[in-house]
Amino acid sequence: MNAKEFRVAAKNLIDIVADYLENIEERRVISNVEPGYMKALLPSEAPTEKENWQDVFDDIEKVIMPGITHWHHPNFFAFYPTANSFPGICGDILSSAIACIGFSWIASPACTELEVIVLDWLAKAISLPKCFISSEPKSEGGGIIVGTASEATLTALIVARDEAKRKYGKNASLNFVAYCSSEAHCSVKKATIIAGVQCNLVKVGDDLKLNGKLLEEAILKDKSNRLIPIFVCGTIGTTNTCAFDDLESISEISQKYEIWCHVDAAYAGSSFICAEYRYLMKGIENCDSFVFNPHKWLQVNFDCSTLWYRNVKIVERTFAIDALYLRRTDEQCKSAPDFRQWQIPLGRRFRSLKLWFVLRMMGIKHLQETIRKHINLAKLFAKEIQKTGYFQILEEPIMGLICFRSKENEETLRLVDELKKDGRIFVTPCDVQNKNYIRMSIGSTNVEECHVLNAVRVINEMFNKIKEE
Amino acid sequence: MNAKEFRVAAKNLIDIVADYLENIEERRVISNVEPGYMKALLPSEAPTEKENWQDVFDDIEKVIMPGITHWHHPNFFAFYPTANSFPGICGDILSSAIACIGFSWIASPACTELEVIVLDWLAKAISLPKCFISSEPKSEGGGIIVGTASEATLTALIVARDEAKRKYGKNASLNFVAYCSSEAHCSVKKATIIAGVQCNLVKVGDDLKLNGKLLEEAILKDKSNRLIPIFVCGTIGTTNTCAFDDLESISEISQKYEIWCHVDAAYAGSSFICAEYRYLMKGIENCDSFVFNPHKWLQVNFDCSTLWYRNVKIVERTFAIDALYLRRTDEQCKSAPDFRQWQIPLGRRFRSLKLWFVLRMMGIKHLQETIRKHINLAKLFAKEIQKTGYFQILEEPIMGLICFRSKENEETLRLVDELKKDGRIFVTPCDVQNKNYIRMSIGSTNVEECHVLNAVRVINEMFNKIKEE
Repeated sequence: MNAKEFRVAAKNLIDIVADYLENIEERRVISNVEPGYMKALLPSEAPTEKENWQDVFDDIEKVIMPGITHWHHPNFFAFYPTANSFPGICGDILSSAIACIGFSWIASPACTELEVIVLDWLAKAISLPKCFISSEPKSEGGGIIVGTASEATLTALIVARDEAKRKYGKNASLNFVAYCSSEAHCSVKKATIIAGVQCNLVKVGDDLKLNGKLLEEAILKDKSNRLIPIFVCGTIGTTNTCAFDDLESISEISQKYEIWCHVDAAYAGSSFICAEYRYLMKGIENCDSFVFNPHKWLQVNFDCSTLWYRNVKIVERTFAIDALYLRRTDEQCKSAPDFRQWQIPLGRRFRSLKLWFVLRMMGIKHLQETIRKHINLAKLFAKEIQKTGYFQILEEPIMGLICFRSKENEETLRLVDELKKDGRIFVTPCDVQNKNYIRMSIGSTNVEECHVLNAVRVINEMFNKIKEE
Repeated sequence: MNAKEFRVAAKNLIDIVADYLENIEERRVISNVEPGYMKALLPSEAPTEKENWQDVFDDIEKVIMPGITHWHHPNFFAFYPTANSFPGICGDILSSAIACIGFSWIASPACTELEVIVLDWLAKAISLPKCFISSEPKSEGGGIIVGTASEATLTALIVARDEAKRKYGKNASLNFVAYCSSEAHCSVKKATIIAGVQCNLVKVGDDLKLNGKLLEEAILKDKSNRLIPIFVCGTIGTTNTCAFDDLESISEISQKYEIWCHVDAAYAGSSFICAEYRYLMKGIENCDSFVFNPHKWLQVNFDCSTLWYRNVKIVERTFAIDALYLRRTDEQCKSAPDFRQWQIPLGRRFRSLKLWFVLRMMGIKHLQETIRKHINLAKLFAKEIQKTGYFQILEEPIMGLICFRSKENEETLRLVDELKKDGRIFVTPCDVQNKNYIRMSIGSTNVEECHVLNAVRVINEMFNKIKEE
């Protein structure tokens, strides 16, 4: 395919993409193929001779679409949302075309510099403290784009672990312990496995929040057993129920015991572009690292997980390994970071382009309005689902997630399964202190009041069907 | 931006992209901006109100392009190549638009199933042994796409470490040691830091190859010091000089001492689609994991690093952590993997689309022809650069990389710097047993004989200029 053919083929593809997103509502939100469906549709080997792009594009509808669960369908209420927007797609197109590998400044100065600037933009837009903003005069901090919040948490934990090794000695590392709420995302536990440190999932009370008191109790108990606390991950909006840890008291305790305080705001962090939600991150000024996912709720396509450090020198101390083929001049060192020294992989895509495109082509005001719209829809859903008389909610929604249940666990899980079979809406279950709930997550760019009210109707209808059996 | 505007804007962008790649040769291959150049060109905060897409696109040329080092310029001979192709860009566009997060089968069955099928296609195309191919009757193996070879090596090491913990006990882990050649990529060392195991960079001889004899000597010495060998990374085409470890003898020793044998063929792995280069991976049938980067030399845009395991059950034993919101049915388990249990992050893009597009729209034959063309150009360069009488080469090129030097280290590095200032071609240096070389890496999709001959002329001219001073 040469440039001339590409102009035709790619423009054709743009129409396929626009048609898909414009008419997504006509599709079944959850794929209902059988496991292994694709094997029958494709040959068992790659072709020797090239195929026409028209034939390949025809297979998008024949082979791919039947197996897609449409995350951007307005009736997709499962998991947490993932973002998708036209400016975000444009940013990805440009990134694919430039296709530089930004592992060092000279490998493409724009790739590093735009990331520095746009991460400062974003930090300011959510009112992160100045210590995280690289352009602030006394700041030693800065931000970087990584692939996922899991990667961010792992990276922060590795840095904390290596600082602790320098402090306590390498032999002490078998006794290192990291903390998070028992409600934290499984990626925190996974990070501790990878980092080889123990994990204390601190059991939280009925409010599902980790706080300084619970953390301190756990620390003291572990210390009396000769363990060495090194890290705590506070969650600002858990995946399970969108519970908010009490960051203020957690960060105080982390300072008292000199342990690294990392904040996982993967989902809820986007809401901080609205001033009225920033109270939820009180205490952030005492934390060491903070991550949230613009690719969840800020209209930037996956992957774009933004991670800020209070002190990037500590990070470089862990990750800076250099070979001659990567060397740089002192002049470059002063003006721009080599982001490979802040992250696990060496290579990196030009991901700041899509964030830049979204911030500019949408503007902060529109992003704020979208967040507020979703939260208002969640409040509407909470009201309407309770009106049916069949369901109770876990708590009034703060963000776009509502957890609700009928009286019985089995009945609740049965309803999730029946809704999945029915296929008009997609919701997923969760488990809160031995009670099953249904998670209704509102965050699709295309969701409107009519979809939320329709979801209430469908849930009601399917519940009545179960009851009648 | 709505779908209607997107059709206009994105098609405009397709033309920008096609123009860029079609006329890339008119640009200076290395960016010559000063560090910090972008700050003056952009405001210090994100806009409140949205901007026109036309204004944003205008900034591509004004703000971004001056800071781009053009990796797809035919005069880019630095580092190793990174791939870029029109079918690859099309695959990325579709992936951005569908924007599903394929962490489990039901989250989008097509995302998992296409990856399984296309990784089998690719394994067959490079003649990987059957034990790595998921569709082979007795196989327990399979492949996955990860972001980078660094991530692949880290993932394999974590799995090996956790198997060793189960075997030797957790307390033994402080004594775990991993091996690689002193010529291996710095990401292997970085992986050991992250995994918290010791790293023995085995010093290699003049041939720059790790072999079974050197490995066994190192293992025996370490064992006598109570260390526990758990992992070796064999490199098939080092980053420094494209040296090939003797995989056959290394894998024999790894079997003898029951340690995990991982193969990093990041760059050279693509060449195995040509039968005549497969001798370089002799011994692969005894290895546990194998990674190469189609995003380097197989025309698939970054990121697409393909990693195969001989036994995926061992991998799942390390990475499988589940929450109710991720649960799946037994039926799904049997037919398709949940790839999140094979990797460090939870979320994942639909990256197999671009690999599928490239394999189909180009065909294996064309991919083979491109590899062979590059290798022939490397041989031509080696011949021509020696003809000048000023330079000696490290060895005859096997792949697309030639390392050459003048008689003096300082002169050689000076030449690299002068070439960078001149800006007509981009080459990078390397360091081989205290001798500096210039790496001439030929792998850009657009490179032709004329560019290689021109590079010889430019190098000659600049060298004469230094000599005359």
